[in-house]
Amino acid sequence: MADPRDCVLTVNAGSSSIKFGLFEAGAAPAARMTGLVERIGDGPRIKAEDGDGASLVKRDLTAAEGADHVSALATVLALLRERFPAARVIGVGHRVVHGGVAYDRPIRVGAAEMAELERLSPFAPLHQPHNLAGVRAAAATFPDAPQIACFDTAFHRAHPFVNDAFALPREYYDKGVRRYGFHGLSYDYVAGELARVAPHLHAGRVVVAHLGNGASMCGLLGGRSVASTMGFSALDGLPMGTRCGQLDPGVLLYLMQQEGMGADEISDLLYRRSGLLGLSGLSNDMRELLAARTDAARQAVDYFVFRIRRELGALAAALGGLDALVFCGGIGENAHEIRARVCDGMGWIGLELDEGANAENARVISAEFSRVRVLRIPTNEEIVIARAAVALIGGEARAAAE
Amino acid sequence: MADPRDCVLTVNAGSSSIKFGLFEAGAAPAARMTGLVERIGDGPRIKAEDGDGASLVKRDLTAAEGADHVSALATVLALLRERFPAARVIGVGHRVVHGGVAYDRPIRVGAAEMAELERLSPFAPLHQPHNLAGVRAAAATFPDAPQIACFDTAFHRAHPFVNDAFALPREYYDKGVRRYGFHGLSYDYVAGELARVAPHLHAGRVVVAHLGNGASMCGLLGGRSVASTMGFSALDGLPMGTRCGQLDPGVLLYLMQQEGMGADEISDLLYRRSGLLGLSGLSNDMRELLAARTDAARQAVDYFVFRIRRELGALAAALGGLDALVFCGGIGENAHEIRARVCDGMGWIGLELDEGANAENARVISAEFSRVRVLRIPTNEEIVIARAAVALIGGEARAAAE
Repeated sequence: MADPRDCVLTVNAGSSSIKFGLFEAGAAPAARMTGLVERIGDGPRIKAEDGDGASLVKRDLTAAEGADHVSALATVLALLRERFPAARVIGVGHRVVHGGVAYDRPIRVGAAEMAELERLSPFAPLHQPHNLAGVRAAAATFPDAPQIACFDTAFHRAHPFVNDAFALPREYYDKGVRRYGFHGLSYDYVAGELARVAPHLHAGRVVVAHLGNGASMCGLLGGRSVASTMGFSALDGLPMGTRCGQLDPGVLLYLMQQEGMGADEISDLLYRRSGLLGLSGLSNDMRELLAARTDAARQAVDYFVFRIRRELGALAAALGGLDALVFCGGIGENAHEIRARVCDGMGWIGLELDEGANAENARVISAEFSRVRVLRIPTNEEIVIARAAVALIGGEARAAAE
Repeated sequence: MADPRDCVLTVNAGSSSIKFGLFEAGAAPAARMTGLVERIGDGPRIKAEDGDGASLVKRDLTAAEGADHVSALATVLALLRERFPAARVIGVGHRVVHGGVAYDRPIRVGAAEMAELERLSPFAPLHQPHNLAGVRAAAATFPDAPQIACFDTAFHRAHPFVNDAFALPREYYDKGVRRYGFHGLSYDYVAGELARVAPHLHAGRVVVAHLGNGASMCGLLGGRSVASTMGFSALDGLPMGTRCGQLDPGVLLYLMQQEGMGADEISDLLYRRSGLLGLSGLSNDMRELLAARTDAARQAVDYFVFRIRRELGALAAALGGLDALVFCGGIGENAHEIRARVCDGMGWIGLELDEGANAENARVISAEFSRVRVLRIPTNEEIVIARAAVALIGGEARAAAE
């Protein structure tokens, strides 16, 4: 059995933030602390809660404490030594956006794997370098702990060819221009929860809608991903807080040829100025849009809902029908109005909502006689990372002992 | 009543070809001749048939006869004088790909309209200039006949906002970056035929799949287009002979940033080297791909079929269900294997094919007890143009007489 002092740390490093979690390294990892260092390098601050949600710390950091990813992680380490003096970090699990074609499960990152993951940065230039900076910082801060990478793409790697390819010359497929799909840690968690609470649905045709500031949908057959609305990048599919979602490639040609825009300008437009923010001209925050009374805010929400409905039909076609729809993510878990509008008039597919249960954020929100079951399952990407790290370290330990 | 010698000419001008048709200008225009001048400027040739499909001419043209669009149309005029000496061309109807935001029906093209249509060329740089070259050539060849433009976009102009917009900053919508949709003349014809042969279906929720070397699908409610798989350009939606169809915008950023490709190179890749040709590495011709025995050809067909199925589900969601599916276009009308595969396993949406009727290319190809009816309706864009020209000229004549 594991030593009760053994813990794993989870790290989700973005461009200027690190989400972290401390989990007991048991068979069912429980959170002892979750937190966030944000504004790294520019007015850094930290906050953290214990496993029951009680605040452990919430303060501005000195410039030195939050100068970069390494100093931010050292600050997390100091917090950990102070609050959990007996804890031993036996491994660090990282969310890494891109695992490419090869990685269909978590891996321990050594020098060779790091080189391979760096090679994938051109596929996710806005995310992968920051994720890998987090791995490097954690290896420097916890030199004795294995670093484990958990990929947003891994859950989708078994997609059939038709959901993996674009209709481009074959050489692009061969060099990795594929429909990877993302949010895989979230879908992995939801699929696991579904297997636990509703195994008969887990065995069937399920669409999961991960709706947050990033948003995508995933089609599951027997708990395995067979299709996703996200493709090669984190831009495709549903509109998001500031990202465009599905876009005619002809629009990019227009921006290049007629408006003289370069790649960096277009990238900034599509990643940071589009989506709900672009359409509404107001905000990327669904709560603000639902409260706003402008036509543009209403149209932005209309568009978001419509695209989810459209992709629900598309994924049902990919699955050969639908047995369950699951909502998760910040919007999916909390915005009952959005869930209601997604499900409105979906009787043609056998789906009827229970308005009361939906308004109360219940777990099952479909009507009693709805053929398609609708569920709300709060997602938890951190625990998927913690479980993967524990399993990988345990497996290596067993292998070493044999 | 119209003079029986009165005719309208239809013109569909591409970069190096002109399709033409001569129709009696009666209440129900009948074709007297249809034909094609191709390879304009580079080994030109002409072929034409009469209204019964008997060959009228098929020969190479001299370089002078087919040097450009004007000389090609003069050659058509000479053929017309020779074969139909009594015919009077009282109007020329043109297929014009782009009518922009304003034009939701055919128009007579004067100088002001021509300027407006030229202003739209940046939205369809590969098609609009050639269409307008056809209008100019026809105006020079038939100076006394009104020139009438029929737009591929017009049939879709009543789309609701959610099917008209992309999730970009509002300024792009305002300046015309919208989901126009194309193949409108074909959908207009099919909707008319449906009203004639099956008015109860025409009144309902219908998806039309126009599957040719260009391909798109359209959702109809009560005979009016409410959604299309094509967006801003003729690239979006279904994969086509050489066009990519739906593509993650992140792929274009990758091509620009990582492969250093410019707009013209990317345009050439996506318009001319992708789609069925790109995936198969073999051909853009569905007949060749169905006959081929290579894995890549099989995967190209798989991909084509899958994307049609996916969009069928998506459009059903946009329509709130499905009452009928109609196939048209070269592949839709002739490739029974493709139709069968699109409809296979669609019981979840209430659709079952009659395999025998499908193999025989019957008009109704759904099974007797299929809730969703499936039809095969050969399309006819030329007659839509001819009818529009006759109606517009007749309306102007009546207005002048009053």
